[in-house]
Amino acid sequence: VPKRVDHEERRAEIAAAVWRIAADRGLEAASMREIAAEAGVSPGRVQHYFADKDALMLFAARRLRERVEERVARGTAEGAAPRDRLRALLRALLPLDAGSRADALAGAAISVRARGDPGLAERYDAGRTRIAAELSARLADVRADLDHELEARTLLALAQGLASDLMLDHQTPRQATAVLDHYLGRLLP
Amino acid sequence: VPKRVDHEERRAEIAAAVWRIAADRGLEAASMREIAAEAGVSPGRVQHYFADKDALMLFAARRLRERVEERVARGTAEGAAPRDRLRALLRALLPLDAGSRADALAGAAISVRARGDPGLAERYDAGRTRIAAELSARLADVRADLDHELEARTLLALAQGLASDLMLDHQTPRQATAVLDHYLGRLLP
Repeated sequence: VPKRVDHEERRAEIAAAVWRIAADRGLEAASMREIAAEAGVSPGRVQHYFADKDALMLFAARRLRERVEERVARGTAEGAAPRDRLRALLRALLPLDAGSRADALAGAAISVRARGDPGLAERYDAGRTRIAAELSARLADVRADLDHELEARTLLALAQGLASDLMLDHQTPRQATAVLDHYLGRLLP
Repeated sequence: VPKRVDHEERRAEIAAAVWRIAADRGLEAASMREIAAEAGVSPGRVQHYFADKDALMLFAARRLRERVEERVARGTAEGAAPRDRLRALLRALLPLDAGSRADALAGAAISVRARGDPGLAERYDAGRTRIAAELSARLADVRADLDHELEARTLLALAQGLASDLMLDHQTPRQATAVLDHYLGRLLP
């Protein structure tokens, strides 16, 4: 069904335009017209796929969450040692290269918008809860004696702080990786 | 010089209006007119004190940084044990009550704007550097054997992640405090 695939691609291109605007200048001022221009399509085409800006934001947020989860899944692929999988999961949460940096900037803008949009906040929170559960499970694999829920909340907060530092160029990828490895070294001697 | 004091108060009131708008809906869309309305003064009055929006943002960011630094100074007052001073310094960085929460939300919005404004970014970074140096010095007081610069970067990233969780209601003040105390307990046994 080639027609269907084409529609999905078009929707993905529009979502990518939302991410670029989010990363560049935030979402508060982004109109449907501006999003259409960024995607290189007509405003009518955007309207054809999305009833309103809220529907488009939900779709863009869902696709972004899927990208982060795919990165996490690749990072925690079967076969690696439990400790390496935990480290890879945490690294997947950090904007250490251009692609993940763009995603992180878009995600930060979406999280700001989610503060005033309960539907968006719900999706955002669901993704976060899944990542916290995954972290907790990976921690249980490597050290049975920890309070996994508390440790997962600590690690997730640390990863978020490092992600913020990387986005604002307050730490280099090398420095942020050193912080993460130092922390894991103390947690898992 | 009562006239001068009055001017300072008026400038402070306008800065507070900027923080409220920043915390409520971000700064991208805030016009000088909107800021004047929020402060309850005429647009001409705002123009009288600040040449343009950039000058106003710089002032609002400086006053906000001073508030955070005053909170940190109160938290690390002379007399307390070194370990308590370190904990108080970190707690001063977290939005654990209504006042510090409003400041943190405004600070987050300003940090987003600072990505596109070198003058603002410079002030923001200077405040951050001072806090990192203070953290490093407090760490040196309690454990001479650590890599204080690396530990300070780790603690600052953790505090930022917790601050973000508190702002987005992903952790309660009690949970965030538990994470901090658990972390300090492992760092300073």
